[in-house]
Amino acid sequence: MDEAREKVAAVLGSRTREVVFTSGGTESDNSAIKGVATALKPGGKHVITTAIEHHAIIHSCEEIVEAGYEVTYLPVGSSGVVDPGAVEEAIREDTILVSVMYANNEIGTVQDIAEIARRTHGKAQAMGRDIVVHTDAVQAAGWLSLDVNELDVDMMSLSAHKFHGPKGVGILYVRRGTPFNPLIVGGGQERQRRSGTENVPGIVGTAVALDLREAEREVSFDKVIKLRDMLIEGTLERIPGVRLNGDRSRRLPNNANFSFDGVEGEAVLLGLDFAGICASTQSACSSASIEPSHVLVALGLDADLAVGSLRITLGSDSTEEEIRTTLDVLPDVISRLRDMPSLASTI
Amino acid sequence: MDEAREKVAAVLGSRTREVVFTSGGTESDNSAIKGVATALKPGGKHVITTAIEHHAIIHSCEEIVEAGYEVTYLPVGSSGVVDPGAVEEAIREDTILVSVMYANNEIGTVQDIAEIARRTHGKAQAMGRDIVVHTDAVQAAGWLSLDVNELDVDMMSLSAHKFHGPKGVGILYVRRGTPFNPLIVGGGQERQRRSGTENVPGIVGTAVALDLREAEREVSFDKVIKLRDMLIEGTLERIPGVRLNGDRSRRLPNNANFSFDGVEGEAVLLGLDFAGICASTQSACSSASIEPSHVLVALGLDADLAVGSLRITLGSDSTEEEIRTTLDVLPDVISRLRDMPSLASTI
Repeated sequence: MDEAREKVAAVLGSRTREVVFTSGGTESDNSAIKGVATALKPGGKHVITTAIEHHAIIHSCEEIVEAGYEVTYLPVGSSGVVDPGAVEEAIREDTILVSVMYANNEIGTVQDIAEIARRTHGKAQAMGRDIVVHTDAVQAAGWLSLDVNELDVDMMSLSAHKFHGPKGVGILYVRRGTPFNPLIVGGGQERQRRSGTENVPGIVGTAVALDLREAEREVSFDKVIKLRDMLIEGTLERIPGVRLNGDRSRRLPNNANFSFDGVEGEAVLLGLDFAGICASTQSACSSASIEPSHVLVALGLDADLAVGSLRITLGSDSTEEEIRTTLDVLPDVISRLRDMPSLASTI
Repeated sequence: MDEAREKVAAVLGSRTREVVFTSGGTESDNSAIKGVATALKPGGKHVITTAIEHHAIIHSCEEIVEAGYEVTYLPVGSSGVVDPGAVEEAIREDTILVSVMYANNEIGTVQDIAEIARRTHGKAQAMGRDIVVHTDAVQAAGWLSLDVNELDVDMMSLSAHKFHGPKGVGILYVRRGTPFNPLIVGGGQERQRRSGTENVPGIVGTAVALDLREAEREVSFDKVIKLRDMLIEGTLERIPGVRLNGDRSRRLPNNANFSFDGVEGEAVLLGLDFAGICASTQSACSSASIEPSHVLVALGLDADLAVGSLRITLGSDSTEEEIRTTLDVLPDVISRLRDMPSLASTI
């Protein structure tokens, strides 16, 4: 476990004792929101986050609202970008926490966390107080730098299986001195920040996976971004009535997300599946849900487009041939579905 | 995961959908206490537990006390037994939850959970309300019946590594209809009772381990109880100034816990370690702590005896020869330590 913690700290540029192992990104997010909120309650009850966070953040915020806190959900632009100036403006005398996700899990939009943190810490300092800055970096891990000093964050959530580590392990980075109450109490493991017998094999595997991924991250980044752009450009050229969801440039290298006029995402999935292509709609966690995606709704999409999106995720081992096959199959799937009105727009 | 849930439900005698997988016994305990307390807050704010619970329960109770709840910590007899009549008497108009551990992790004392639950549910019914009965069965698992209907409990916590499953996996049994708010929110996994991507390999391993252990539990019980009694009787006969902590008969088959006048537990561990015998003092979670055990203090032991206890835990594969070796080595270790006043009673 000591070696694992050192490996993680090396990737984060942090102290080893600032690394807390959890049971996953969801626990890390819950711990950050509730842990800071309860620890700082005497100083204020206002939390700032965004409309496009993962449900682990949004539902944790709903929970603290029930307990009497106030939460501002910042809107995002049509491509999902959070304006750092809007974060700064939303800060009040009683703001204790700002939580903005590093990269979105559905549309891949990457936020300028360093600028958001710089402005938040600057304004906090001017007010002579502390405001904790947290980022949910679950989806960014493996693709973007996780250096907590470059990012200037006080807390960061990570999930091992997102960088090919085991399921059921997460990391919560907690900068020294950050006010924080543990979510799970008991034996006092993880320096009193997360009790419970440690998942030792999972933790060791997590550190090895993060270390391996960090070593190949930048090479992988350049390779995958080319394939992604080939997929996006090809899709926009070949298919009429298509919309790229998310930002064209501030985007994870491995994410493409489209809405097709008059076609439901689930039906597209089925068509692609017959051709051996795996994709998803909305977020994986809510895959059984038929609710429109809160992320796409926040971008301003109508409910039928928001329920009908297709997400294609690339990996380091994706190939140009796979992209070509997808670009051959997808237009055909879409046009067939558009010819079958009973399958299109069932909302 | 479906198969795993079926295996666990078969051992518990429960419905599959009443089985919630967590990251361990500590998370299960935290979830039970806080989850029922917040769910039942409108109906009352009083919780009953005991003075000898695991820290996962005690610290969760301390947390809800800070949030305005009231907790009664029932005292135990000198052997650690909780009087079911005392539980019944402690129930008030505003009691919402009774949590009593099935078997203690330090002294092995086994509680009459079925009688405690019967009296609690009876009194609740007479008052026309519900009181949730939870048991921390972490230490009992693998040795005692986990049938939730025989035990008449509404919730039960289990930890996989206690029955030779993987570390970092736990179970929370939640009877249908039990008021409960999840500790970890987000994607809505585990039927909204525990969010987060599931530790699939860990969960599968947990179910296999529980299933295997259940099949050999009763045979193992009879074998180990004989070895335990040989160890206890031999120790009491051969060593003067020794006290058996916990109950002689209401005791886990695999637990022996002694205090030796004028000798510190840590020093005994070291002496046994040289002879290749592994033991522990207090609870494993608090092994770095030099605080006297709250469990032994609750039995009425002085602080020096409470810090100096030795716990020897047997397993299904323990042998008579190992017990004989221990009985040969232990008297010598104790008498040597008593001859070295600097090592004895350093408190």
